[in-house]
Parts: sequence; C-alpha cells; structure tokens
Amino acid sequence: MTFTRQLAAAWQKNDSLLCVGLDPDPAKFPAELKGRDDRIFDFCKTIVDATADLVCAFKPQIAYFAARRAEDQLEALIAHIHEKHPGIPVILDSKRGDIGSTAEQYAIEAFERFKADAVTINPYMGRDSVEPYLAYPDKGVILLCRTSNPGGSDLQFLDVGGEKLYERVARLASKDWNTTGQIGLVVGATFPAEIARVREIVGDVPLLVPGIGAQGGDIEATVKAGRTANATGLMINSSRAILYAGKDENFHIAARAAALDTRKAINLYR
Amino acid sequence: MTFTRQLAAAWQKNDSLLCVGLDPDPAKFPAELKGRDDRIFDFCKTIVDATADLVCAFKPQIAYFAARRAEDQLEALIAHIHEKHPGIPVILDSKRGDIGSTAEQYAIEAFERFKADAVTINPYMGRDSVEPYLAYPDKGVILLCRTSNPGGSDLQFLDVGGEKLYERVARLASKDWNTTGQIGLVVGATFPAEIARVREIVGDVPLLVPGIGAQGGDIEATVKAGRTANATGLMINSSRAILYAGKDENFHIAARAAALDTRKAINLYR
Repeated sequence: MTFTRQLAAAWQKNDSLLCVGLDPDPAKFPAELKGRDDRIFDFCKTIVDATADLVCAFKPQIAYFAARRAEDQLEALIAHIHEKHPGIPVILDSKRGDIGSTAEQYAIEAFERFKADAVTINPYMGRDSVEPYLAYPDKGVILLCRTSNPGGSDLQFLDVGGEKLYERVARLASKDWNTTGQIGLVVGATFPAEIARVREIVGDVPLLVPGIGAQGGDIEATVKAGRTANATGLMINSSRAILYAGKDENFHIAARAAALDTRKAINLYR
Repeated sequence: MTFTRQLAAAWQKNDSLLCVGLDPDPAKFPAELKGRDDRIFDFCKTIVDATADLVCAFKPQIAYFAARRAEDQLEALIAHIHEKHPGIPVILDSKRGDIGSTAEQYAIEAFERFKADAVTINPYMGRDSVEPYLAYPDKGVILLCRTSNPGGSDLQFLDVGGEKLYERVARLASKDWNTTGQIGLVVGATFPAEIARVREIVGDVPLLVPGIGAQGGDIEATVKAGRTANATGLMINSSRAILYAGKDENFHIAARAAALDTRKAINLYR
C-alpha cells in the first residue's frame, strides 16, 4: 500500500491527525531508564505501544539515534511498529538533501535499511535531489517548506519575485516535482497564516506540522489553517510533550493521557 | 588546533588544495573487494594511505556508509586518518539541517561520535540550525551555498531582492553567522562564475568545491575563480575519479596517480 493510502486509512481508523514524534533523549528518560543509551528502543517501544491506537503516524527523529550509536535500536523500533501496529506509517525524520547519486544512497538508508514508509527531505538542492526517493513508488517524500524554528525565516521568508521562498517551494514541490503523488510538505505550527497559505497552494497534499507542544504552536489555529475539505490532510506532530509527560515508571500512562488530550484538542477543531 | 588552522597547515605541508572524497560504493570496488559491504573500511583505508601526502582534507560521505549499516567502519576510518595521518582534517559530508535541539544531536553525531574535524550543513532552516555546531570551537562548519547538481538552480538561483539566493546565503553565512570564524561554504565547480562571485562576497572564507572529475567541473576555471590572494582558500574535491581510477588489485597505485595528476593540475593554476 502506498504511504498516502496508509496515511488516509490511519486518519480514519484512529480518528486522529496526531503524529507522535520519537525524539528519544536518555537524559530525559524516566525512572530506571534514565541515562541509558541501551534502553532507547525500550523507551520508544513503550511510548509506541501506549499510543498506537491514537495516532496517524509515528515520526522517529534519526539524530537522536545517531548521536548515540543506536541505529540498530531504530531499525528494531520501526520493525516493531510494522509488526505490532500494522497500518500506522513511520516517517523517518532525517531531512537529507544531496546530489542524485548520493540521494540514492540516502533513499537506501531510509527505505531499504530502516524500512520507513516516508522520509523528510530538504529542498535546497532542488529537483534531482528529490527524485531518487520518488523512485520508490510506495513511499512518501515530505519536503521542508516552512519550518517551525526562529531561523526558519532567514531564507524561507525571502521574497523571490512576488512570493516567499517557502511559497515557491510549496508550488514547485506539490506541482512540478509531484508527478507521482508521493510528496508531502513540512509546515511549522508556529506560523498558522503560512499553513493556510501553503494549503491554498498545494490542494490536498498532506502537511506534516511540527511545533505544537514544546515549541508553542497553537492547535486550534493549526487545524483551522491546515485541514482539507474532508477534515484531514494533516499530520500534527508532538514529541516532547508526549514522550516526557510522565517522570516515573508510569510514563506510558502519562504519555497516553497526553496523546488522548492532544487528539481530542485537534478533533475539536476539525 | 582549530579546523581552520589545521586546513591551512595541510594546504602548506602537502602543497595541495585537493580534497579526496570518500564515497565508497562496494559495487564499484576493484578485484576481491567488489560487492563486499564488510570491506568498506579496507577500501577507504587503502585510498587514504595512498593519497594522504597529496591532500588538504578527506571528505567521507556518510550516505554511503549509512546505506550499508557501516557506521562502525566510518568511525574506524576517521580514527585511522587521525592516527596515521595527523594534521589532515576530516570533513564529514552529511549536509544535516534541523531545529536547534535536533541540531545539537547531529553535532554530537559528527563531532563526538565520528570525531570529524568539520561537517557540511544545509542552510535552509537558518541561523539557529547552524549555531549548535559552532558551539564546538575547534570544528569547521561548511554550509551549502551553490551546489554542483542540475537542480541546484531551482532555489539557489532565485532572485531575492537584487541578489541570488546563493549570494544571500554566502553573505549571511560568512558575515552575520560567522561570529567565530568557523564557517566555510560549499560552491560547486560546475559554476565557476558563481565561485568567483562567492569569493568576492566572503573574503578568505574557505570554499569546499565539489564537481571536478565525474561531475565535469573545470579545474583551471575553478582555481582561478576561487583562490585567495595567497593562492589557497579552496578544498577542491574529487571522489569517483580517484577512488575508482583503478579496476584491479593495484587500485591504490591508480588512485595515487590520479591524485598526483589532480594536485598538479590544480597547482598549475594557483
């Protein structure tokens, strides 16, 4: 099944636009897992099993694994999600971007090694840096457009002949480059007006929206700005606010409660 | 010693602006190494030992290792370069780019795990996506500016108010963001006029120039466009043309001959 269909099915089955971001930092782990690089899989697995019926996707952030020599735990985690929670797509958040021949290697990393269902990509190097990922027809390719961080404006908000750079990226990616319907875009929740603008440009293309929770984005504004006509179209990501909701051995209960609350808050405005 | 000083010393000691890119593809390995994912270290080590007195830097491309679950071999390779060829800086070509908290993890990956002397970074997410790398004062941070691939023009060549996006990146990165003198820039050899333009903007900031050899960039034009007043300032990268110069068990001899030729061709125009 393609990523797009898998995502649509998960939106419906779990009645959820919530994506749980898996950014495991052992220094923040609760109870007996705290500081344990070798327990990254266990921590994430516990979060996944506690929230899998409440989400439309999981999004592991590869930097947190790579910093701790834990690629094997990331492989195991994605395999676990696919085995125990079939139908929930996994977005590998790696934001790669390189020339074609190197992008082919990164596509192998994401889709053949880690077996992710979708991957995040940086658009700065242009069309041929995206194409090797599109060669995997079942996979999703989610391009950075308008990012949620303060420096996101340094380049993305520059005027490029009557539109902002992020608008140009939205247009190029969703029209010119999206010949196969595999493309999605990242638009930060910290800029609801720009979510609305991107939605206007891209039609029903799925948007991955980080920045609610720890980064301060507003759920109501995000949903109203980004939902499609059928009240889907969004993967609204929350990482830290769910992962670290609890401080003790019952952290999975706190995480589930936080995920339930977030799904509910999102659904209130759909 | 800082990356900048280490690079300056290597330029002088080896009388070389040549950077050898380590993009190991086992399908292209010669003789008995061919197809062997477990011999990536051996292949790269042989290339490194055959060329270390001819280069100003080595640049392993992490995608080639990550696609084959070979991060351990990359760690071993960088350790080998530091131990056997002290003074030759290692640039980890990973082109990461993410929000501050995630960039901190990527900085750990590059500088603490792999122990690279410098890292390549994508500027699309702006200043705060670069700062966590600058927190390591001895390390180099080399930002994508004008890339050598065909799609490089899709965004980088857009006009952003009287200058191109790559010129804006050159200006922001080398002036506003370069408070510590750690920053370098990537400018492709396929666009010599733009190398000259970037040199004009950035002063003596080091430029990493991929695209000679397999990608077709011209050495004379590159050197003349990019050299600084003291005839340095460049890390001119060649990967495939050196790595795969030989097809049999004497591939290290062919690689050394190709590196010697390339260094000589570069020095002819300094």
